[in-house]
Amino acid sequence: MSERAEKLSAAVADAGLDQLIVGDLVRPGDSGPDAIADARWLTGFSGTSALAVVGATERLFITDFRYAERVGSEVANGFEPVILSGRMLAGLAKRLRGRVGYDDSQTSVANLRKLADEVEEGVELVPAPGLVTKLRRHKTAKEVEAMAAAAKIADEVYGWLHERGFAGRTEREVALAAEVRMRELGAEGPSFRPIVAAGSNAAIPHHDVSERMIEAGEMLLIDMGAIVDGYCSDCTRTFAVGDVGEKEREVFELVKAAQQAGLDAVRIGVEGKDADAASREPIDEAGYGELYGHGLGHGVGLEVHEAPRLGKASEDTLEAADAVTVEPGIYLPGEFGVRIEDLVIVTDSGPRILTRFTKDLLTGS
Amino acid sequence: MSERAEKLSAAVADAGLDQLIVGDLVRPGDSGPDAIADARWLTGFSGTSALAVVGATERLFITDFRYAERVGSEVANGFEPVILSGRMLAGLAKRLRGRVGYDDSQTSVANLRKLADEVEEGVELVPAPGLVTKLRRHKTAKEVEAMAAAAKIADEVYGWLHERGFAGRTEREVALAAEVRMRELGAEGPSFRPIVAAGSNAAIPHHDVSERMIEAGEMLLIDMGAIVDGYCSDCTRTFAVGDVGEKEREVFELVKAAQQAGLDAVRIGVEGKDADAASREPIDEAGYGELYGHGLGHGVGLEVHEAPRLGKASEDTLEAADAVTVEPGIYLPGEFGVRIEDLVIVTDSGPRILTRFTKDLLTGS
Repeated sequence: MSERAEKLSAAVADAGLDQLIVGDLVRPGDSGPDAIADARWLTGFSGTSALAVVGATERLFITDFRYAERVGSEVANGFEPVILSGRMLAGLAKRLRGRVGYDDSQTSVANLRKLADEVEEGVELVPAPGLVTKLRRHKTAKEVEAMAAAAKIADEVYGWLHERGFAGRTEREVALAAEVRMRELGAEGPSFRPIVAAGSNAAIPHHDVSERMIEAGEMLLIDMGAIVDGYCSDCTRTFAVGDVGEKEREVFELVKAAQQAGLDAVRIGVEGKDADAASREPIDEAGYGELYGHGLGHGVGLEVHEAPRLGKASEDTLEAADAVTVEPGIYLPGEFGVRIEDLVIVTDSGPRILTRFTKDLLTGS
Repeated sequence: MSERAEKLSAAVADAGLDQLIVGDLVRPGDSGPDAIADARWLTGFSGTSALAVVGATERLFITDFRYAERVGSEVANGFEPVILSGRMLAGLAKRLRGRVGYDDSQTSVANLRKLADEVEEGVELVPAPGLVTKLRRHKTAKEVEAMAAAAKIADEVYGWLHERGFAGRTEREVALAAEVRMRELGAEGPSFRPIVAAGSNAAIPHHDVSERMIEAGEMLLIDMGAIVDGYCSDCTRTFAVGDVGEKEREVFELVKAAQQAGLDAVRIGVEGKDADAASREPIDEAGYGELYGHGLGHGVGLEVHEAPRLGKASEDTLEAADAVTVEPGIYLPGEFGVRIEDLVIVTDSGPRILTRFTKDLLTGS
């Protein structure tokens, strides 16, 4: 953790700032996912309601009454704890000096105004987005280990679900069983609410779950991940429940080829938009381009969606130790959908795939 | 839903606006809890990635590709659907005219700047916080019914957990069992991750769960709720696992009396800070005032924390059909904690209590 704070201090100095505020300035007492992740990455604190201030040598950790006890057990050495019983913003304002950066994508208009009203004279508040986000991209061996453990749990759950069989269960039953099994296998929880989408529901890219019964002859898409030590995994597999038609098999193989093309493109120095384009080529050629309506993938870590992004509009370039998903899909409205997703670490020798469950079309009950 | 849109149109006109943007302008493609709730309340849409624009007669519903199919089945009549394949903010900007309100507590500094760059000449963006939040406070009979159903499920889970016994299980096991049981009983899920806190962990007001084994002779605090039709319940009960000491019993009875004092104060026209003060009186008198470090309660609905707030700094006044929690607590660091929480609807004839599980000190295995 102290290494992280040192890297951030360097980034703060590079940006010409005296201090950087880290954490959620939208709902500072009740933080959103982004901000929890930034503050957690920096300090180790796993609760909500966390702000940090980092300067050249200064490290403050600010939380409220409710978390006083947790600070001692979790927050990294070197951070001075500031426990507030009143408003977070007022407490924060008192500790700001000089030119102070804040992440304008994590700060609400209302709270910036309140903070500006409360800081002492001479404090200048400056937008400085993404400084922590950028550092969080590069996973250490320990972070990769946690993500690999999370991916392994989800792999086991895929196998277990497939063995139990799908036909005659509802989407919701399968999703609940998956969540419970993940926790039994040691996950802190699912990294998001599992998507279990049968038949035409699988044509809805972000279908959640429904009471729909899964039936023989359908394609079944399951998108899920686990959390271990705060780190997420993310994986999608599409199954054939019993016999499916020729079209389903063709589309499946096409997505599988596109996913491999995506994996092949995930290398250090490749632009996110080029990796995306590589996966799109086989799908475009087969005439299904319009039905692949999302990007190739996204970064994963403490958050299930984080930097970098791989898609048409991406401005990111892949770097060593990025953790990203590779997940093309084809969605035929009213019919079915196929998506295949791996979670990989970008390394010198190509992608290291953390999600190891088979990508062959498994047919079963 | 159309009644809701009409009420909002009136509020928009009262605020001197031509249009109001409803929804998350922090992460508009991947919305946070607040904004999902505002847009869901207004339109019925239950997915993320939802923005609405409401004028005198204009009603737009804006979402992205991923949710195209869900719009037809969920979004209320009268809303013109706008399905975007590109950036939400650019698509939104195109539809704005005149004096346009936005909720500055749900808009990031970065996105306000982007939106201002993209709107046509003559559009004026004006902070207009809380217009939807305020309307959401007053629950209809149907909303109360969903919350009562959610509360009933949690009541049943408390009884079921108590019957199974606690000693020899870990906090995490109990929490997971509670979540699964809620879903088996028909909940969409828990309204938040259940808090199961044994012994000294119960002295940490927002302890989550741990691998700690629950032992005989301890106090055990369980704070949980369920979701039915999108609406949350919220309830806390504190149990004695086997025999507990005199001090534990005394503190329990004190919290129970404080909770009753809080309930007695929850009436139409009472200020949030006065209801809070009423619950604080017996605790202050007994010399435990310093150990009751949070407010009396909060509103509940589509979100588990929403308006109004009942606490020392509250500026809210209770109104008919508010749904609020009443939840004083005493936390003795290193020893134990007690909190008792009900969810109530504010009515002409006093609070209607939705959480019906006993508030007597239950001792059991």
